[in-house]
Amino acid sequence: MSDSRRSVLIVGASAAGLRCACRLARLRPGWQITVVEAGAVFSYAACGLPYVLSGDVEDLTALRQTTYGVVRDQRFFAEEKGVAVLTGWRATRAKLAQGLLKIEGPEGERQLSWDELVLATGARPRRLAKQPEHPRVRCFHGWQDLEPLKAGLAGGQIGRVVIVGAGPLGCELAEAFHSLWGAEVSMVEAGQAALPGVLDPELGGCVASHLEARGVRLLTGQPLGRLEADDQGVRVGAGGEELSADLVLVAIGVEPEVELARRLGVRLGPTGAIAVDERLATSVPHLWAAGDCVEVRDLSSGLPVYRPLGSLANRQGRVLANILAGQADSFPPVAGAMAVKVFDLNVAAVGATETALRARGVRVRSVWATLDDRSPFWPQNAELHLKLSYEPSSRRVLGVQAVGRGDAVKRVDVATQLIAQGATLAQFARLEHAYAPPYAPAVDPLAVLAFAAQNQEDGVEAVSPTGALEAALDVRLPGERQRRPAPAAEVQELALSVLRSGSPAAAGIHGPGIVICERGGRAAEAVRLLRESGRPARYLGGGLVWREAALDGGRRR
Amino acid sequence: MSDSRRSVLIVGASAAGLRCACRLARLRPGWQITVVEAGAVFSYAACGLPYVLSGDVEDLTALRQTTYGVVRDQRFFAEEKGVAVLTGWRATRAKLAQGLLKIEGPEGERQLSWDELVLATGARPRRLAKQPEHPRVRCFHGWQDLEPLKAGLAGGQIGRVVIVGAGPLGCELAEAFHSLWGAEVSMVEAGQAALPGVLDPELGGCVASHLEARGVRLLTGQPLGRLEADDQGVRVGAGGEELSADLVLVAIGVEPEVELARRLGVRLGPTGAIAVDERLATSVPHLWAAGDCVEVRDLSSGLPVYRPLGSLANRQGRVLANILAGQADSFPPVAGAMAVKVFDLNVAAVGATETALRARGVRVRSVWATLDDRSPFWPQNAELHLKLSYEPSSRRVLGVQAVGRGDAVKRVDVATQLIAQGATLAQFARLEHAYAPPYAPAVDPLAVLAFAAQNQEDGVEAVSPTGALEAALDVRLPGERQRRPAPAAEVQELALSVLRSGSPAAAGIHGPGIVICERGGRAAEAVRLLRESGRPARYLGGGLVWREAALDGGRRR
Repeated sequence: MSDSRRSVLIVGASAAGLRCACRLARLRPGWQITVVEAGAVFSYAACGLPYVLSGDVEDLTALRQTTYGVVRDQRFFAEEKGVAVLTGWRATRAKLAQGLLKIEGPEGERQLSWDELVLATGARPRRLAKQPEHPRVRCFHGWQDLEPLKAGLAGGQIGRVVIVGAGPLGCELAEAFHSLWGAEVSMVEAGQAALPGVLDPELGGCVASHLEARGVRLLTGQPLGRLEADDQGVRVGAGGEELSADLVLVAIGVEPEVELARRLGVRLGPTGAIAVDERLATSVPHLWAAGDCVEVRDLSSGLPVYRPLGSLANRQGRVLANILAGQADSFPPVAGAMAVKVFDLNVAAVGATETALRARGVRVRSVWATLDDRSPFWPQNAELHLKLSYEPSSRRVLGVQAVGRGDAVKRVDVATQLIAQGATLAQFARLEHAYAPPYAPAVDPLAVLAFAAQNQEDGVEAVSPTGALEAALDVRLPGERQRRPAPAAEVQELALSVLRSGSPAAAGIHGPGIVICERGGRAAEAVRLLRESGRPARYLGGGLVWREAALDGGRRR
Repeated sequence: MSDSRRSVLIVGASAAGLRCACRLARLRPGWQITVVEAGAVFSYAACGLPYVLSGDVEDLTALRQTTYGVVRDQRFFAEEKGVAVLTGWRATRAKLAQGLLKIEGPEGERQLSWDELVLATGARPRRLAKQPEHPRVRCFHGWQDLEPLKAGLAGGQIGRVVIVGAGPLGCELAEAFHSLWGAEVSMVEAGQAALPGVLDPELGGCVASHLEARGVRLLTGQPLGRLEADDQGVRVGAGGEELSADLVLVAIGVEPEVELARRLGVRLGPTGAIAVDERLATSVPHLWAAGDCVEVRDLSSGLPVYRPLGSLANRQGRVLANILAGQADSFPPVAGAMAVKVFDLNVAAVGATETALRARGVRVRSVWATLDDRSPFWPQNAELHLKLSYEPSSRRVLGVQAVGRGDAVKRVDVATQLIAQGATLAQFARLEHAYAPPYAPAVDPLAVLAFAAQNQEDGVEAVSPTGALEAALDVRLPGERQRRPAPAAEVQELALSVLRSGSPAAAGIHGPGIVICERGGRAAEAVRLLRESGRPARYLGGGLVWREAALDGGRRR
C-alpha cells in the first residue's frame, strides 16, 4: 500500500479528516489526496464556538487561522498542504467493488475514485425525542448555529434562555449567554447535578452552586416536560414548573454522523458509532474511519465508548495517516481525560466516576480532599476539590475528578499518565512533580489523595462531603466554628490537642459520629486517634469547605 | 521494630524531619518522638523566603502557618501532632553503641537516648572559595538572612546589588531586589547562560534575555574575579570589568550539612551528601537520613545526584516514617523535575540537559518547538519554547525543558510521569490530555515535540534555534519577513506553495541551507519537500521567534 501512487479519499474536513490528509500528503507527496466536505466553512475549531458566542474570541475567522494569520481555506490546503478540499459536496453513495464514491453538490453529481476511503464524518447534535421544529428551539453545534444566535442576542430578541442539559456544552453556553449578553439563563438537567457522566454529584454540586452564584438558575433531577414554541416564545415544563423563555437551546450531547457508513455496510458498534480496530480500520476492507464518528476503547473497562473530543480526533487523524502510509502505528485505548471551564471554576476529570463504576458492578472506594493548588502562602494560590476512586483489591486508581478555582487540569493531566499505565495508589503516592511556590505545593495534591486512600485502607475511613451528617465531632478551633457553623443536628466540639492528650471518654465524647474540620485533614487525624482508643469513627472527606461549596446552591434554591 | 515502644530521635526540624516525625506519631502513637533543632525558628517553607523579600508574601509567619491559621511552633507540634521539638539545641556527638546523642544549648549540655536516629540536617549555602567575611557579602538561605536584607533595603542602604550565580535562587533574588525594592541588580554567572545545569544555553538564553529586558544586567561566561568589601561598598571583578555595589549576594547553590553524619562515621556518597539506600538507611545500623542532607539516585543515569528540593524532602520524610513504623516502602530514583519563576517567565525542566548528557558521553539528539500553551484563539494563550532530548537508538526520552510565558510547569509535570516510566517518543506521541480551549491546544505540545523527533529520525532534521545561521531559506510570508527580518548573512525567500508546486531548481534555490520560519513548523515541512526533490536541508528548531527570544538580550548587551 505504501509505495505505489495511490488515491485517498476522505469524507469530512474537520480535525480528523484534515489532519490525516495533511500528514499523508507530507509522507506520500506523490499520492492524490482529496477531502470532500458538505459545508462551506471548514477547518475551524468547533470547540471554540461557544467562546465566539461569549465574546472571548472575536469571530469565526479566529477559529480557522494559522498562528501566522492565514485562513485555512481551500487555497491554503491546496497550495501549502498539497490537499484538495471539495466543499459543498455531500457524499451520497459508493460502489465498493469499483472504489467509486458519488457526491452531490450545487453543480449536480460527480463520481470520485479511491483506493482508500476514510470516513471522517464527525458528529451531529442529539435532538430531543419530540423536539419542535421552530427557530426558537435550537441546537448549537456548527458554524451555522452562530450567526442566528448572535443576531438575536444583539437585536435584543433573546432575553431569557432555557438550556436543556448541563453537560460541558450546556455549561459553556450558560456562561456565554449570561456573561456577554446578560441573558437570564435557566438550565434543566435530568441528572442529579451539573456535568453528570463527567462528575459525581458531590463535584457536580460544586459546579451547580457556582452556576447559581453567578445568576444561572439550574434545575437538576428534573426530567424535561412539555416543550412548546411559537412566535411569541417558548414554554418548557420542568418538574412541576413551566419556564417561559425566548429561546431553548438543546445541549444534550452529540451523536456520530454515520449515515454514509451505514449505506456503505460498515459495522457500527454498541455505542452507535463506527466500530474500528486499533488501526482505525472499519469492517469493510480499504474503508477507514476517524474522529467523532468512531467509538474508542475505554482503558479501564476495555469496552467501546463514544468520546467525541477534538484532541482524540486530531490524534486519530495523524495515526491513520501513518497507517495509510505503511508505518506501524495504532490508536490506543482512552483513559477519558476531559476539561471544561464553567465561569471561574476549572473542572477536569479522567477515568470513570464512582457512579459509573458502581453501575458497572465494580467494587470501588473513594477519597476526597480540599487542597491548595500552589504553596499556601503564594498570593495566587487557589482551592481545589479532588476525588480519587480506586479498586480496593488491586489498589488500582480508576478515576480522578477535580473542581475549583485552582488548576484542576494540570492534576488531571498528570493523573491521566498514571492511570494510562494502570498505576496503583503506591505509584500515585510517590509521584514526582516540579515544585516551586508559584506553581505547586511541596506535596502534590494527587499524592495527598493517594495518602488518604492508603490511610483509608488502614482504617481511616472517609465519607462523602455531601453525605448525611447527623452527629458530628468538630475538631476545629473556636474561631473557625464561628465563621462556618457545623451543619449537623448534633455537634460535639473537641480539639485535636485534647483528643491527643487523653481518652475520648475523658474528653466527654459519646456515641459514634463523623469527624469534621475545614478541609478534612485534621478530621482524618482525629479518626486515627479515636480508633487507637477503640472508638470507631469516620471523617468528612474534603471537609466543610467542600460540603458548603456543593450544597450551598441547593440551600439558596 | 514496629511493635515495641521505641524512641526515635530526629536531628533537624525542617521538611524531612518534621514530616517524618508527625507521620510516625500518627502511625505509632505510643512511641516517643523527639526532634532536635539548632535554630529558634523552624518549620517554615524556606522556598518561600525570596518571596518574603520580594513582598509577594507578607512575612515569615505566612511561611509557617497551617491553612487554618495556626503557627507551626513547639506548642503546635507537641499538642496537635504529639511530637516534641527541642529548639536551640545543637547535636554534637553520639555514643552509637549506647544509643546516646549529646546536644548543646544555651542551658548547657544534655544527653538523649534513641533506638532509631534520623539525620535531617538539611543543607547550608555554598560559599565562594575566598568569600570575604563582611556584612556586605552574604548568602541567602535561612530565616536569619531575611531581616538584615529587608532592613538594609528599607533603609535605602542597598541600591546596587551584585548576585553571584544565575541559578534558580539567584534569579528569584534578582526579581525580588529589582521589583519590590528597585535595586540596580547585576548578576555574574560563570556558565554560558542563565540557569546552567537546569537548562541548555538556548533556553537559558531566553531567561537571560528576559532578565535583561526587565533591567537586570547579566554577565554570563564570566568567572568571578576579585571580590573586595569594606564599609563603603563592594567591588567585584567579572571578566574585564569591575562592578561596584552596596551588597554582594552569593547564590551558587547549597551543600549538604553533614558535620554530624561525618562525626558519627556515616558514609558520604560521591556528591558529598549522605549515602542512603532505597529505604533511606545510612551505612550505620539504626541511623537513617532524609532531606537536603542526602543524595538520591538519578533515574536516567542510575548515578547518585544531589537534589536539595523541598518536594523530595517531604516525600522522604513520609517514606522514612512508614519504614520506621515497619511498613514496606522505599524512596524511588528521581527524574529531576524542577520549576522556577523568573519575572514573567515560567521555567521548568525534567531529566537531563543535552549538555549534561553529552558530558556523560550519552548519544543524544534534540528537537525544539515554539508552541501555544492553549488554543491559539484563546485570549490568555501564551507561547512556550520547548526542547526534548532523546536517545536515538532506543528512542527513549531523556529530558524535556520548557521556557515561556505559557504554562511550562504543566507540560513538565506530565513529561515527568512519562520519563519516570522510561517512555519513548512513541509514547509521548500518543499521550492523552484533558482538552478544552481555555486550558490546552487540541494537540499537546509534548506530543508535537515527539512528532518532531520522530520526523527527525525520518530525515527531517532540526538545528538549534541559536546555532550558526549563514545561508537561510525563508519560507515565511512577505509580511512576516518585514516584521522580523531573517538574521542570516544570505537569505533566499521561498513560499511553501512554490516549493510544493515545482522543483527547487525551478524555484531558483541554490546551495544548502537552513530553512527558517516563525516557529519551525513550516520550515520542517519545507525540509521534507526539499528532501523529496533530492536537496538536503535542515530547519531552525523553534523558529526565529525562539532565536530572537534567546539572542536578543545578547545583542542589547
